[in-house]
Amino acid sequence: MEEIRKTEIIKSKENKFFKRIKKLKTKKYRDKEKLFIAEGHKFLDFKEVPKYIVIREECDRYEEKIAAFNCEKYILSEPLFNEITTQENSQGIILIYEMRDGEMEALEDNIVVLDRVQDPGNLGTIIRVADAAGYKDIILTKGSVDVYNDKCVRSSMGSLFNMNILYREAGELLKDLREKGYKLSVTALATDAVSYSEMKLGERNAIIFGNEGQGVAQEIIDTADQKVIIPIYGSAESLNVAMASGIMLYKCRELLG
Amino acid sequence: MEEIRKTEIIKSKENKFFKRIKKLKTKKYRDKEKLFIAEGHKFLDFKEVPKYIVIREECDRYEEKIAAFNCEKYILSEPLFNEITTQENSQGIILIYEMRDGEMEALEDNIVVLDRVQDPGNLGTIIRVADAAGYKDIILTKGSVDVYNDKCVRSSMGSLFNMNILYREAGELLKDLREKGYKLSVTALATDAVSYSEMKLGERNAIIFGNEGQGVAQEIIDTADQKVIIPIYGSAESLNVAMASGIMLYKCRELLG
Repeated sequence: MEEIRKTEIIKSKENKFFKRIKKLKTKKYRDKEKLFIAEGHKFLDFKEVPKYIVIREECDRYEEKIAAFNCEKYILSEPLFNEITTQENSQGIILIYEMRDGEMEALEDNIVVLDRVQDPGNLGTIIRVADAAGYKDIILTKGSVDVYNDKCVRSSMGSLFNMNILYREAGELLKDLREKGYKLSVTALATDAVSYSEMKLGERNAIIFGNEGQGVAQEIIDTADQKVIIPIYGSAESLNVAMASGIMLYKCRELLG
Repeated sequence: MEEIRKTEIIKSKENKFFKRIKKLKTKKYRDKEKLFIAEGHKFLDFKEVPKYIVIREECDRYEEKIAAFNCEKYILSEPLFNEITTQENSQGIILIYEMRDGEMEALEDNIVVLDRVQDPGNLGTIIRVADAAGYKDIILTKGSVDVYNDKCVRSSMGSLFNMNILYREAGELLKDLREKGYKLSVTALATDAVSYSEMKLGERNAIIFGNEGQGVAQEIIDTADQKVIIPIYGSAESLNVAMASGIMLYKCRELLG
């Protein structure tokens, strides 16, 4: 840990590295720099190697884990660190990772499509449960929340690093998926929807979930091969989209055998 | 809405009603008064009649819905209201409900048990999905988070009102459930656990989920009839307890037919 101890503490707001990292809080600069922020010591447990590790001065609890990563390390004074953290009780550690481009060419036979999901916590939760259920690909339609939003990154619990994630315009995406032979199953509260436990899967399947308030867009529902519903047996009004995704994706995994 | 318009605005911190409501932010006073706080206009959509409706001065967007409830209504000055709200962007409406005592006598044949779940958001999410999956009873072991925590109330999305919820000491509860003929199925990462899709249910079933970090207590696992696991097919480390509950409870509903 000598390496870190010797590192100079950045104290000036004019410091170039500080200014650059601070800008990563906005999507515009994340996309420009192809970098994103992940906060919390939990990220030190993942294999993914960050580009930078940023430590708050006097935070020395994670020295051993930090030393294991071969990357640039920076120490920020507390006031500067506090300008970057989004956490009320920050653990004093931030990791900066390089974005990876999603690939439309490498899709597996069973993929997840999210149509304008808005809540970053929901997106992160869906990424985590999709990973758990053995999916590798998540395609989001344009207008969906940014996957590199700090709340999404945090709630994905590292599963973000395991997934092929990309954004596509809905119409083009549907055309593409058709050409590639995907059967499109949309979750919808339609009267002619089949119960999720009786859905029929094809050789290649895209399971589509929709926006929190409006569900899947009508143009996608109209073109889908199958409308699927998770029945509400009790008095609850609805299921949250992340919960519905988890129940549905695990069911599909089971049906696929 | 004349009734509300004529209501005097409470402006003094010494006002008895204000002082009483403010105290409901702590579990101790909630339990003493047998009242709890729910915040947000969403609660005006539920049938449950509150004991009091509290409105921030100049908040007149929900007049019609408020008028539909036959209960006492109070208006608080903005500074007083802000002392009670826990929301950053409050909608200016708080509902106060009477607690209902859970009943151990009225349990249905299929019930949910939560062992020391700590996160109020998780508890609320589990209440919502348990309701959706057609369960009516949730028993929490002592040491679990308070169901009347504002975050739990909010994330339960009204399902709180549909459920029979009670707290019991773990040892006593297990004895009681045995006597009542419940088969105990615990979710556990044990090597001898059966996959959730192959679990065997009895005539009466208690499905048990555990603490976020530690899982179900060993004493409960040891006495259970069946250990059940939701397999992780991908690279995710684990499933969040709320997500695991949703997947498991829907599977049980399906197995019950």
